[in-house]
Amino acid sequence: MDSTSFMSCFLIPRSVALIGLSRATGEGSYNLLENLFHLGYRGRIYPVNPNAQEILGVRCYATVSEIPEAVDLAVILTPRELVPSVVSECTNRGIKAIIVVSQGFADADEKGKRLQQEISWIANQGGARIIGPNTFGTVNAFHSFSTAFMKLELKPLPIGLICQTGVMFIGFPGIRLFGKGIDLGNACDIDFADCVDYFGDDPEVSLIVLQIEGLRDGRRFMETARQVAKRKPIIALKTGRSKAGARAAQSHTGSLSGSDEVYNASFKQSGVIRVYDIEELGDLVGGFLHLPPMRGRRLAVASITGAGGIIAADACERYGLQLAQLSPLSLDKIAALSPPWMSIGNPVDMWPASMISGHPYDHVVKTTLEALLGDEGVDAVLYMTTEIESEPALDVAEAIFDVTGRFPTKPIVTWRYSPHISQASARLEQSRRVLVYPSCERAVRTLTALATYYERIAAPE
Amino acid sequence: MDSTSFMSCFLIPRSVALIGLSRATGEGSYNLLENLFHLGYRGRIYPVNPNAQEILGVRCYATVSEIPEAVDLAVILTPRELVPSVVSECTNRGIKAIIVVSQGFADADEKGKRLQQEISWIANQGGARIIGPNTFGTVNAFHSFSTAFMKLELKPLPIGLICQTGVMFIGFPGIRLFGKGIDLGNACDIDFADCVDYFGDDPEVSLIVLQIEGLRDGRRFMETARQVAKRKPIIALKTGRSKAGARAAQSHTGSLSGSDEVYNASFKQSGVIRVYDIEELGDLVGGFLHLPPMRGRRLAVASITGAGGIIAADACERYGLQLAQLSPLSLDKIAALSPPWMSIGNPVDMWPASMISGHPYDHVVKTTLEALLGDEGVDAVLYMTTEIESEPALDVAEAIFDVTGRFPTKPIVTWRYSPHISQASARLEQSRRVLVYPSCERAVRTLTALATYYERIAAPE
Repeated sequence: MDSTSFMSCFLIPRSVALIGLSRATGEGSYNLLENLFHLGYRGRIYPVNPNAQEILGVRCYATVSEIPEAVDLAVILTPRELVPSVVSECTNRGIKAIIVVSQGFADADEKGKRLQQEISWIANQGGARIIGPNTFGTVNAFHSFSTAFMKLELKPLPIGLICQTGVMFIGFPGIRLFGKGIDLGNACDIDFADCVDYFGDDPEVSLIVLQIEGLRDGRRFMETARQVAKRKPIIALKTGRSKAGARAAQSHTGSLSGSDEVYNASFKQSGVIRVYDIEELGDLVGGFLHLPPMRGRRLAVASITGAGGIIAADACERYGLQLAQLSPLSLDKIAALSPPWMSIGNPVDMWPASMISGHPYDHVVKTTLEALLGDEGVDAVLYMTTEIESEPALDVAEAIFDVTGRFPTKPIVTWRYSPHISQASARLEQSRRVLVYPSCERAVRTLTALATYYERIAAPE
Repeated sequence: MDSTSFMSCFLIPRSVALIGLSRATGEGSYNLLENLFHLGYRGRIYPVNPNAQEILGVRCYATVSEIPEAVDLAVILTPRELVPSVVSECTNRGIKAIIVVSQGFADADEKGKRLQQEISWIANQGGARIIGPNTFGTVNAFHSFSTAFMKLELKPLPIGLICQTGVMFIGFPGIRLFGKGIDLGNACDIDFADCVDYFGDDPEVSLIVLQIEGLRDGRRFMETARQVAKRKPIIALKTGRSKAGARAAQSHTGSLSGSDEVYNASFKQSGVIRVYDIEELGDLVGGFLHLPPMRGRRLAVASITGAGGIIAADACERYGLQLAQLSPLSLDKIAALSPPWMSIGNPVDMWPASMISGHPYDHVVKTTLEALLGDEGVDAVLYMTTEIESEPALDVAEAIFDVTGRFPTKPIVTWRYSPHISQASARLEQSRRVLVYPSCERAVRTLTALATYYERIAAPE
């Protein structure tokens, strides 16, 4: 089987056997069948449990071999001791894709390590592939499918996630990391390279996210990633970077974390974008998903306060963007509104034009953003303006919408500088035309990642 | 005048003159008198405007000298050209505290720089002190007082903020940085040292926050800060760190940013806690305000997933905490619930005890937290557990409340690992007993700052 067809069995199975499915249903039971009903999965489901006739109205089979039809995917939920014989039954039944959810393998003691070797060997002999053990398995929002034992709300985002923990599936407030997800768990067989390769060719995936505890075959991963990264951004969070973290990774998924410097070099060489925490990951995912390509490193900054410009300038140096040199035309447009004593440059301080020269603030914002976005020497714009409920004159969302809508090819970001999340800024955020960040640094960091990625794919090899 | 009495005129004035107050009121007018009414300021207010008889029903004076009573504080709002003569009138009238809100001084051109020197000289000759120019002035939530031209919602938090931009007064979602605030603007006279000294003795202030663009007298600042930092934490955000940022600082407040290495060394030597962005500042303010002192660097971690433990271990190394070595008793308590194949250590993975050994999850969480908080080798606890609306069995807020309430002397933090901000976690956050962070890294970074501060004040000089 080539990688597309075996990976399809894991992500878009037409039929699935749930082996060792509990009879317990309802709150706290983590029943996979119930979850599949909840999602509205439309394939065939075969529960296997020798002690039940039916579960939630679905006929149960005592063993895998009794299932009368072909099965694309087997999900194994039994205690660890039973897993080898169940894997064997699956291969005998002709099943080619197996997810082992059960824990207690390389994540546990010596016995667990031997059991894991045993199931890999059995699957290999029988021509089957395994995801896991110790995993949530796969989730596919496009196919209403999930083997995660927790009920998840899915959304068909064009993001393929490959990880070693269900944490990434559950998510965080405001951070959605996938439309299709693969938790490799202990990764006894199917590894990152297989999944990167598959998502690389998947037309429903435009962005690939990795959370890696350890890689078995670094060279193969790098070669695959290098090819795929030319077509789709790959963002990686490597955990288990520290000594204590590496030890913890070994007891979580039995992973050998390896030297962090080696990872750094490998990611760099293969064009994988490395992030260091969940917030950075969420920020970059949003940026690559919603912003147009950034075609250079020249940032223009417009701020209601000079202090914001200073902070933005610091952030540019910290992360690696340059403050754009504005054209004489742009400078003239802005100077025309400003007090005569002001020296105009980038960053632009918009406030004196309104407070001292008396121009309506929304007009100043609009004129400034127009000048910056229309300037050929500018690759992206960061603006900051505040909203205060008790000062309605500061609400310039309409002016911003108007301008930004007319410049679709340049990324525009803003720092949410306001005591509350106002309706206006929520609307901007929903429009996805302007990305709103809780700090200037996070906005600039995201733009830097975009610029670096598009710089690399534009460069000849 | 000693520092306490002249600073009192700025922060708790019994009477204030608003010189150059506009007749315009309502939306977009930024009228200081209106703002003081909005806040319910109880002192006497004297508007000065030669073109008005009254503003908002308050009698106007044509000049400062006509005001019949003593004035604690003058706030100057006139165009820059008029400021020197107004300052002179103020000193002649015996006013000792002057805030110059007007812009266009060292933040502007050569003429502005000369004007600024002139007003400093006049004030000095007349025995008056100046805050500004180019400033929001002062805000005091305990006294319902503000000279900020934007309407602000105030809260009497025990935080004294000293800054060079109104950005810090306006704030950010979820981040409140002050109960009393001083915007020094261009800082032509009153400087950070004066204000740190004042807040150091102010019983209503327990924490001092600085946003610095430049310091004129570094040595005096350091000496003052070193004394005050023994009694109250001082947290500083230095902006204008980069070359471009330093240039921008010069046109914002005319500040000379100076070498960043020198700042680093000065902060370190004087015990000032340095932060690098607004989010870090907000996190640390929350930590110092609400968490008990951290008396060592030994962190215990309890997580619903092994992956969380790995991330926490990485964060400890990144920021400078150690994973605590748990006592045999603690390990036994946790092992008693866990599958026999699990090796128990810190970080603690709580999930197998529930999923595999079948103990109710809230019982596992409670037992684990009790063991960790009761362990003498543990200085603080980080836990992570998820909440999903569709899985009510995971809601363990009651168990957490119960345990954490019984251990008031150790900091407890959590990483908000959940797709939404649930009622339970909002309640935890409101209780202020457990601080909730959006990432493991931010939780650990905050604890590290606490540990570093209390380590320093416990050490003999």
